[in-house]
Amino acid sequence: MSSTDVLLALDWGTSSLRAYRFGADGRVVGSSSSDDGVGAVHDRGPRALRDALARAARRAGATRPLPTLACGMVGSRQGWVEVPYVSVPADLATLTDRITVVPADEGPLHILPGMVDEGSLPSVMRGEETQVVGVLDRARWAGSESIEQLIVLPGTHTKWVTVRGRSLQSIATTMTGEVYALLRRSSILAATMTTTTALHREVFESAVRLARSSGVGATSTIFSTRSLGLLDRLPPEAQAAHLSGLLIGHELLDHQPPGDPPAWTLAGEEALCRRYACAGEVLGWPTPTIRADAAPRGLWRLATAAGLVRLVEEEAHE
Amino acid sequence: MSSTDVLLALDWGTSSLRAYRFGADGRVVGSSSSDDGVGAVHDRGPRALRDALARAARRAGATRPLPTLACGMVGSRQGWVEVPYVSVPADLATLTDRITVVPADEGPLHILPGMVDEGSLPSVMRGEETQVVGVLDRARWAGSESIEQLIVLPGTHTKWVTVRGRSLQSIATTMTGEVYALLRRSSILAATMTTTTALHREVFESAVRLARSSGVGATSTIFSTRSLGLLDRLPPEAQAAHLSGLLIGHELLDHQPPGDPPAWTLAGEEALCRRYACAGEVLGWPTPTIRADAAPRGLWRLATAAGLVRLVEEEAHE
Repeated sequence: MSSTDVLLALDWGTSSLRAYRFGADGRVVGSSSSDDGVGAVHDRGPRALRDALARAARRAGATRPLPTLACGMVGSRQGWVEVPYVSVPADLATLTDRITVVPADEGPLHILPGMVDEGSLPSVMRGEETQVVGVLDRARWAGSESIEQLIVLPGTHTKWVTVRGRSLQSIATTMTGEVYALLRRSSILAATMTTTTALHREVFESAVRLARSSGVGATSTIFSTRSLGLLDRLPPEAQAAHLSGLLIGHELLDHQPPGDPPAWTLAGEEALCRRYACAGEVLGWPTPTIRADAAPRGLWRLATAAGLVRLVEEEAHE
Repeated sequence: MSSTDVLLALDWGTSSLRAYRFGADGRVVGSSSSDDGVGAVHDRGPRALRDALARAARRAGATRPLPTLACGMVGSRQGWVEVPYVSVPADLATLTDRITVVPADEGPLHILPGMVDEGSLPSVMRGEETQVVGVLDRARWAGSESIEQLIVLPGTHTKWVTVRGRSLQSIATTMTGEVYALLRRSSILAATMTTTTALHREVFESAVRLARSSGVGATSTIFSTRSLGLLDRLPPEAQAAHLSGLLIGHELLDHQPPGDPPAWTLAGEEALCRRYACAGEVLGWPTPTIRADAAPRGLWRLATAAGLVRLVEEEAHE
């Protein structure tokens, strides 16, 4: 099994550690996922990060030392070693130039930097830059300097990255996901809301339209979740969809460029990406591509660009 | 002491019960405040509301039965009896026409209705309509049909009421206060934030300006609290002021009418009202009047309008 593997790649965040073992053709031949995020591991003492890495490699099926590349919070102040942020605008070459190498049990660990947008509304990311590279790796438009695209990574703190050609131009972070979770769990809105897993799509879409027509921002519209309920215009089981539609609607409106609707790609958890796509459809945005494998794809692309699997890649391309 | 008292008035909300005993000249001659809000009292059984009322009257110094008027959640489904909402636009006379009377130990309890704005972004209030009447009672502009004013009642769920003459035209509710509390206590922003009671005024004002220049809404700007901190541009002890300035700034921008800055009055807790006034100053709004006694003033005004202390008021006016 492992005779042709050439790379171990890690997406190592605060709360989870995902490992991917790659074959010479760039396909994932083994993987593992655990809650050994740097947030949990860091408190277990000086050997804990090394042990977590060895465990992840073993679980992903590695039977010998492999060149190893990692992205994410492992490169933060709270991780293995702090790898300084790369400022936008920047492309793939800048990321690989700034890789920091640290010794680990089975050989050196290569850690990618995060990225920073130092504007008046600054933003930082660690790990998401690798997902963006993964999206670019397969996008037909990537490389065309004249086309500006939005790459959106929905999550607790959604990242909105603008890309021109293969260069990352700007980063913005929205707190839609965390605000939604807090409101659903702990606010007055939770009091009248029924827990439901089904998304009431019509209610969601109607809330996106309400966000648009309101002319105001999220903190001024979300109380309608309660007041519409009190007035018997929104049943308890549909209130979560209303709240989600308002918050995601406001988020898309905030990032809608003047003029034509933006070309965009979504990467991340599929159900959440589909909500964003649905909100975009309501607002007249084009249908986005949704990418689920952006992180391993970006790690492979960066490893080959960094020369970690250079010879093998050339073979694979013959 | 109580020989000249003529009215017991209650501001009875979800979490607190405030009682005011009025003299014949309309001044408060005794008061009490407790956490006997309808939310807590309701679960204590059928006599609990009567007992809480008697206790509040006694603590406010009442030694004999007095005409009694109440506003707030006591008139909600979760209160003593549900008094239907009055729809905007409406004036003082509509409120008093809709008073519901229920028997209590020392005589009838008169309960005021709340108000509802049934627009596409509906809003409800119970108790705040009485504060608005209290503001109108002393405002020199009140009564002039040509002047539209904003009356803002900052709190967990801030109410924005537009008034023309003595008529309440529209109601909007913002969740700035609750969102701020949730973010400060439970979000990723809390992780880097030092608890402080002092408001860093320069940081607050700068955040209001950032809200204005951002061109986007609150969920798209608040992550800057963390990222500015990570980039050493915002110290931990100033992050709460930054977050507060962003949220209140966005709220004022949402309610800024097109054209001239609005004429406005603030009523409520003084420190919070001063934050709103400060944000308004940054945005070029005129200096607002801040009213602390709007609830008892409104209760007195409505009690006299309802005839509960009519004769006495006429004496007082002679």
